Amino acid sequence: MRWLKLTVAYDGTAYAGWQFQPNEPTVQAALADAWRAITAEDATLTASGRTDAGVHAVGQVVGVSTASQLPHERLRQGLNAKLPDDIVVTEVVDAPAGFHATHDSLRKLYRYQIHNSRVRPLMDRRYRWHLPQTLDVAAMQAAAAHLVGRHDFASFETTGSERSSTVRTIIRATVEQGGSGGEQVDIEVEGDGFLYNMVRGIAGTLVEVGRGARQPDWMLEVLAARDRRAAGPNAPALGLVLVQVVYAE
Amino acid sequence: MRWLKLTVAYDGTAYAGWQFQPNEPTVQAALADAWRAITAEDATLTASGRTDAGVHAVGQVVGVSTASQLPHERLRQGLNAKLPDDIVVTEVVDAPAGFHATHDSLRKLYRYQIHNSRVRPLMDRRYRWHLPQTLDVAAMQAAAAHLVGRHDFASFETTGSERSSTVRTIIRATVEQGGSGGEQVDIEVEGDGFLYNMVRGIAGTLVEVGRGARQPDWMLEVLAARDRRAAGPNAPALGLVLVQVVYAE
Repeated sequence: MRWLKLTVAYDGTAYAGWQFQPNEPTVQAALADAWRAITAEDATLTASGRTDAGVHAVGQVVGVSTASQLPHERLRQGLNAKLPDDIVVTEVVDAPAGFHATHDSLRKLYRYQIHNSRVRPLMDRRYRWHLPQTLDVAAMQAAAAHLVGRHDFASFETTGSERSSTVRTIIRATVEQGGSGGEQVDIEVEGDGFLYNMVRGIAGTLVEVGRGARQPDWMLEVLAARDRRAAGPNAPALGLVLVQVVYAE
Repeated sequence: MRWLKLTVAYDGTAYAGWQFQPNEPTVQAALADAWRAITAEDATLTASGRTDAGVHAVGQVVGVSTASQLPHERLRQGLNAKLPDDIVVTEVVDAPAGFHATHDSLRKLYRYQIHNSRVRPLMDRRYRWHLPQTLDVAAMQAAAAHLVGRHDFASFETTGSERSSTVRTIIRATVEQGGSGGEQVDIEVEGDGFLYNMVRGIAGTLVEVGRGARQPDWMLEVLAARDRRAAGPNAPALGLVLVQVVYAE
């Protein structure tokens, strides 16, 4: 068997998330269909993690073991020819034997995308949360800085999930303003792991600070509470993008 | 009567162009419906020019005269609440009495957007022409420079149109590479007027140079020929964006 690592980008708008569900369109099912068409194999496609309904990816990583001897580039082109236009395999490379995309990941980078303008977004309308009220980006940045380090992020975990620990290490948490009129506000959070809905909870909490309802240091109280009710609401799925997953070389 | 100037952005993918056509979805018809819903008027909405099926705009300008006394911002918000999500009114301002969006325009800026990568575009798939073969952007830039000035652009006019003159002045013609991996190649052309399909013909001709089929100085021959058959093919509609229309103050 050959072990491969696929980098996959998708527009999550039309999907019930990454993970296979009966009678729902999922990214995993679409990729499995394309894989079957190219290799005639019913492969197990394992992603770095699930993404929820409506969440996007530019750098989701998928591991697969295969008997196919097709060269990387032929596989990539073949899969893309079979996939719908909202899913693209951007890279196919060799992976170490036994590669597991979920368990072997070292860290992940997510971006939460906001369109901050009185005017709703056009080209980005599927990819950015529209917030018409002007956000204080410096205050959001100050609040985000409190997230960096090893913390208990229980306040940012949607209840119902079962994890042995809610402690994670955030390497970087930044808020940057871009676009021709400063209308793009991008929150980037990089860490060694994420709890369920953690980035959407962080984004919703930072927006509370950005709109002036809370001060930046409120983030310290939210973290200390270890209670989901202490944080802001979850930001909507459509603004969330899984940007990159990093593995050991 | 009050004269107003609307700036309108749209994703042209779902439309048979700007101009009203029976039994076809058009941007003009969608805007007229929204206008009627807000003002109860059957207004004449005059754009700076038609855009073809599939062509986009971020800065189309539309003139209208109205008896409505609604403030600019109320009109803008009301129209956007009624419009589908692929059309947005970005600005409403006063216009001089008798304002005519077509005849009064001084110059226009178009951008033709290419996605130049072996991998097809994802987020930009409705807005960029995918060309997998690596383009020589410097050669394209050298060819584009020949367009600047007052020239007869008959070689870039799709036959069938009736114009008194095919002479136009191009103020700027640039080719720039952007995006994280240099995959975005943007052609910008600014001029005092454009012939039918002129920017798509220019883009298709520049791509012939970019892929090495022709040298940059071929552009001089194409211009001199004054014959549509001398130029490259029209680039597809989906990459074309009307960026800005400038009027006298």
